[in-house]
Amino acid sequence: MRRVALVGAGVSKFGVRKATYRDLVWEAGKACFDSVPGVKPKDLDGLVVGSVMPERTAFQSHISSMVAEALGIRPSALSARTEHMCASGTVGIRYAYAFIAAGLADLVMVLGVEKLNQPVADEAVLNMGTGVDREWEAAFGLTAPPCFAFAAQRHMAEYGTTEEQLAMVGVKNHTHAAKNPSAHFTKGATLDQVLGSRMIASPLRLFMCSPITDGAAAVVLASETRARALTDTPVWIRGTGQALDGFQLSSLHEDYAHWPALKRAAQAAYQMAAVGPHEIDLAEVHDCFSIAELIAYEELGFCHKGEAGPFVAEGRSDYGGDVVVNPRGGLIGCGHPLGATGVAQAAEVFVQLRGEAGARQVPAAALALTHNNSGMGEHVVMIYGKEPA
Amino acid sequence: MRRVALVGAGVSKFGVRKATYRDLVWEAGKACFDSVPGVKPKDLDGLVVGSVMPERTAFQSHISSMVAEALGIRPSALSARTEHMCASGTVGIRYAYAFIAAGLADLVMVLGVEKLNQPVADEAVLNMGTGVDREWEAAFGLTAPPCFAFAAQRHMAEYGTTEEQLAMVGVKNHTHAAKNPSAHFTKGATLDQVLGSRMIASPLRLFMCSPITDGAAAVVLASETRARALTDTPVWIRGTGQALDGFQLSSLHEDYAHWPALKRAAQAAYQMAAVGPHEIDLAEVHDCFSIAELIAYEELGFCHKGEAGPFVAEGRSDYGGDVVVNPRGGLIGCGHPLGATGVAQAAEVFVQLRGEAGARQVPAAALALTHNNSGMGEHVVMIYGKEPA
Repeated sequence: MRRVALVGAGVSKFGVRKATYRDLVWEAGKACFDSVPGVKPKDLDGLVVGSVMPERTAFQSHISSMVAEALGIRPSALSARTEHMCASGTVGIRYAYAFIAAGLADLVMVLGVEKLNQPVADEAVLNMGTGVDREWEAAFGLTAPPCFAFAAQRHMAEYGTTEEQLAMVGVKNHTHAAKNPSAHFTKGATLDQVLGSRMIASPLRLFMCSPITDGAAAVVLASETRARALTDTPVWIRGTGQALDGFQLSSLHEDYAHWPALKRAAQAAYQMAAVGPHEIDLAEVHDCFSIAELIAYEELGFCHKGEAGPFVAEGRSDYGGDVVVNPRGGLIGCGHPLGATGVAQAAEVFVQLRGEAGARQVPAAALALTHNNSGMGEHVVMIYGKEPA
Repeated sequence: MRRVALVGAGVSKFGVRKATYRDLVWEAGKACFDSVPGVKPKDLDGLVVGSVMPERTAFQSHISSMVAEALGIRPSALSARTEHMCASGTVGIRYAYAFIAAGLADLVMVLGVEKLNQPVADEAVLNMGTGVDREWEAAFGLTAPPCFAFAAQRHMAEYGTTEEQLAMVGVKNHTHAAKNPSAHFTKGATLDQVLGSRMIASPLRLFMCSPITDGAAAVVLASETRARALTDTPVWIRGTGQALDGFQLSSLHEDYAHWPALKRAAQAAYQMAAVGPHEIDLAEVHDCFSIAELIAYEELGFCHKGEAGPFVAEGRSDYGGDVVVNPRGGLIGCGHPLGATGVAQAAEVFVQLRGEAGARQVPAAALALTHNNSGMGEHVVMIYGKEPA
């Protein structure tokens, strides 16, 4: 199996954008090509696009071909769109990774994009309901916020996690986002603001939730030979893991505060990368709701089970702590344009491990992890390093 | 790179089905598991689902997880949905193939599914419009039938191809479908019936076009070790190629009767498989419209450029000819449930190369090709063999 590295990355501005789906593709695509001057669109032999619901939001299927044409790419080895709800972007990175690792492609762009905000605000909320089981859950109102609220309530009951600790994830990620010009929110937030924001699904308040965001992100993956020819500072894919417990909430047999699929995905990735959780310098974690980040600390092995509340309260997931979690602001601060999220996580790792993250640089970052999920029962983990395995 | 083989395959009944999206998944999934008694859902380490527009037709995203749960699969290595319009199924097979070839997975189901027919008939036609460029083509009525009609008109003008020759593709594929109990149409068709059917987009008449079909298909891919342990007659993936010329009709720089991307995809697949076009015993070709099958003969190298009309008229693409094209009835006879089509092609190759195709068995079939496209400018080719390379 061949080594694979990131050699370029770029993101669009995230937010409520007065831009079309295609505009967002152009913006992230250009930013990505600008980051790697040795690569022109025609040099790529593949394109993978992570995107969830353009059929609903842009009345458009056939996404990879549309993006290829928009960016002037003519894939000669690989073209595909991937969908795995909120994890569509990372699932796309894995498609490109497998092709390059197997020797079937050499230089592939992975682009994630979603245009969620619609002229009628209710339509965006309705569309998000396609992500849970239509017949058994969405039709009865069991969309993402109440699902994750169950997890938060259980974590509070079982481990004494407090509203303040849940709020501190919001404070940290909004504060990080204030240093990221591409983020949806750039004003930061205080503990009072987070705890005073309106209730969405008890105990999750507005500033503990990711918003409905438009955005796109792109990275370029290369085989070792191509990567070394293109840059002195490639960012290596060291490990990857994916696991599923279940889709419907009723299929998650352990209590909702335990996410065994995340643990298994992480273990697979750590084993492949031959590293442990305490060696990770920064982690892009899927904080769709603040409880998700807390449970991720535990299942990823950054702290013991049940200790995530104190872990964030003591600043151990912030600059100067054990591991910097969500330096770009996470989904809560940056926004969560579904298909774009996993690719934007990889793009952040790319600039961080090259020391190019500016005001939000994690000092001496050498090993990074990304975690992208699509519900509490389905998880994808990637591990990246400044050095190959 | 490791060898990969098909070890199981099954299809649902294709047609205008009184069945939900999930019903179709169950039907094809069960048929596939029944074909390979040694594999239970829990034995699979991956699942890929090819599907185009469940967001529109079933108000459902997050498709791979939904299918995993419906079939009792718990992916531990790989879970994804792929979309590439009409080629979504084969693009899914390639995802699984790359993972197994790279050593990242061992036993993966690829399932294709589409529920196109809707309570309101016009909605299905409207939804099909998501497959072409929304802003530049679909909005002006340039959907698939007129695009392929342009190709037919050009082929007739340039090479003297006749309406009768176009019709003979319809006759052949409807006749083949009559021997396939899973096909949408099972009554066959005469030349008079095809030439007398109503005009859709001149010169393409109803019986020269694929219908709007509901259906699903599934195959199981395995690494060499797993394949040999599971069956004495695995069907080996020998080669694969994908290429793109353009998405919008205006981007196809050669005249519409030439499809260079198909030629390149085929050449890549032939080279990888170390075989030539005249060694192929049967081909599942993307006859979304009869002209597509004629141009495919030429670009795949079964005959010279411009000679496809006489090729079909002389029976050279039928039983007893050079190569049996579309023994299951093709898209015209079997129907075209988008994401299911590429997987159903692979399922047909599976039974044919094992000699299990019953009344439609191609004698002494040893090498097979599948061709799946998503517009005139985007093509995927796979080559399968009774023996590994």
